[in-house]
Amino acid sequence: MLATVLHGPGDVRFEHVDEPKILKPTDAIIKLSATCICGSDLWPYRGLQASNGPAQMGHEYCGVVVEVGSEVTTVKPGQFVVGSFCLSDNTCPHCRHGFQSSCVQREFMSGAQAPYARVPLADGTLVATAEHPPEDLIPSLLAVSDVLGTGWYAADAARVQPGSAVVVVGDGAVGLMGVLAARQMGAARIIAMSRHKQRQALALEYGATDIVAERGDAGVAQIKAITQGVGADSVLECVGTQESMQQALQVARPGSMVGFVGVPHGVEFNGQSLFFAQVGMLGGPAPVRRFLPQLMDLVLTRQINPGKVFDQQLPLADVAEGYRAMDERRAIKTLLRV
Amino acid sequence: MLATVLHGPGDVRFEHVDEPKILKPTDAIIKLSATCICGSDLWPYRGLQASNGPAQMGHEYCGVVVEVGSEVTTVKPGQFVVGSFCLSDNTCPHCRHGFQSSCVQREFMSGAQAPYARVPLADGTLVATAEHPPEDLIPSLLAVSDVLGTGWYAADAARVQPGSAVVVVGDGAVGLMGVLAARQMGAARIIAMSRHKQRQALALEYGATDIVAERGDAGVAQIKAITQGVGADSVLECVGTQESMQQALQVARPGSMVGFVGVPHGVEFNGQSLFFAQVGMLGGPAPVRRFLPQLMDLVLTRQINPGKVFDQQLPLADVAEGYRAMDERRAIKTLLRV
Repeated sequence: MLATVLHGPGDVRFEHVDEPKILKPTDAIIKLSATCICGSDLWPYRGLQASNGPAQMGHEYCGVVVEVGSEVTTVKPGQFVVGSFCLSDNTCPHCRHGFQSSCVQREFMSGAQAPYARVPLADGTLVATAEHPPEDLIPSLLAVSDVLGTGWYAADAARVQPGSAVVVVGDGAVGLMGVLAARQMGAARIIAMSRHKQRQALALEYGATDIVAERGDAGVAQIKAITQGVGADSVLECVGTQESMQQALQVARPGSMVGFVGVPHGVEFNGQSLFFAQVGMLGGPAPVRRFLPQLMDLVLTRQINPGKVFDQQLPLADVAEGYRAMDERRAIKTLLRV
Repeated sequence: MLATVLHGPGDVRFEHVDEPKILKPTDAIIKLSATCICGSDLWPYRGLQASNGPAQMGHEYCGVVVEVGSEVTTVKPGQFVVGSFCLSDNTCPHCRHGFQSSCVQREFMSGAQAPYARVPLADGTLVATAEHPPEDLIPSLLAVSDVLGTGWYAADAARVQPGSAVVVVGDGAVGLMGVLAARQMGAARIIAMSRHKQRQALALEYGATDIVAERGDAGVAQIKAITQGVGADSVLECVGTQESMQQALQVARPGSMVGFVGVPHGVEFNGQSLFFAQVGMLGGPAPVRRFLPQLMDLVLTRQINPGKVFDQQLPLADVAEGYRAMDERRAIKTLLRV
């Protein structure tokens, strides 16, 4: 089959790879209904993260099961499924504690920017719908797999409560999903930090009450003004750079939590600064599996529309253009039709 | 009056200083019933923290009010009071949020290793008892002022719950108070990391269920064994060095919280390590004022006996010996009789 392979920085190719096969009795093979490009795919694409030779890309997925290994019991061929980008057994103590992204058997999904993909640990990773969903919900169900689940986890880790004042740092797809999540959790004030008109508009549509275009000290001052000098009850850090993390810490009130979901690149914290700021932190890869049933239900009942975050749709064959568009910030997030 | 002045590393003198006076209408002057030496006093004593010339030492205190400023309304001369080492107005948004140690008017108490002391922001800092407490409860009431309040905050920040498995890193007075706090909060398993026989005994008396004497990888392995490979639900970091913080992070299960109350000295965190460990953190100077009424009540009703952490009692005039004893770890914590 033809699939997406990253050969090096900037070098995405749509080329022949072997079709996936059941390798372990806990695997499933799915035919993708749609797939997409993640902000985190841009780290190796930009050469900001080491990669060892050609890599089959893609970890966000939904589709129809075509084959399962002999030990798989909870999904079967013909079912429509959504899975998490973190593969988990969903039975170990960390999974049962709601942190499936730290499963003792954790693997990260790969090779999903393709017509077919192998999903290891299928029972613990996939959730099937009762029936095949209508076509127009596919983008939103795909979003649940990572980008929505990650924004949701940021809000959960930051302990957004009804009435909270929330700041979202980062106007990428995850940040926008963080806005959606904070709204669903009942935040009273949702301040999106964004300098881009189109992303500001989407943030407002997803529930942002305020937009702050300034960064650095000016951005902090604006947020302090909006929050009567207090700062935010919860901050969602959805970028992963030193600058964005600083921004997050500076707008967080004492006793608040920063949920950080942008994979940190070059981020260091000074212990004493963190101590005297008295700001709490919890981050990590999102345990999407914990949220999957709830989020799929919100999509299937049309209470949320996360799929709108895909502002570009391309045939899978044009995946290289998708990477370019996201790299150049011409697209927020690119859906690939399979 | 004669009081405690630190002139430089290792140079503690009991010498003449001016008697404290009301400087602001929100001040109170108290006559100390007892005072003590804090582990954090050892940082400048050991030359590990810069100090600008001679400093009047002491920030843990309880005693009888002798004079109040014109704006003080909640305490009056003759009342017995306990206060927090963090001075707070208890009315600002951070105070009302329970983080009085980040009060917008925050100051740190000083000059309490003395017969008399000035307490700024008296209304927001002091809590009076209904009547003068019996003499034998003075050490425990003094402990509430900082060391118990700080251990309690560590357990609170680490979200100790009924049934939790808790690790306490550090067997100083704060760590021992962390054990007491975890027990009061209903932890099922309390693992105290300690290599010192006397401190181990006190930890067990305060409610520790397990003692781990090993450090580093061996200590981690022991704790993993005790927790069936899972790690701790909550970790109390009560030291403040890079080593102790590493120890804390390594024994914390994914999704757990580390409450860190040892003032970090030379501690740095790597963002990516913290991300993939998926361990939450909340630290800072303890908002003792939040806990004062509850903790004073637990002492006055003899449900807890934190005063037992004072294993050395000296007349205030011998304060220099108290510093030496704590520095050399001959004493866990030294109470100074006034």
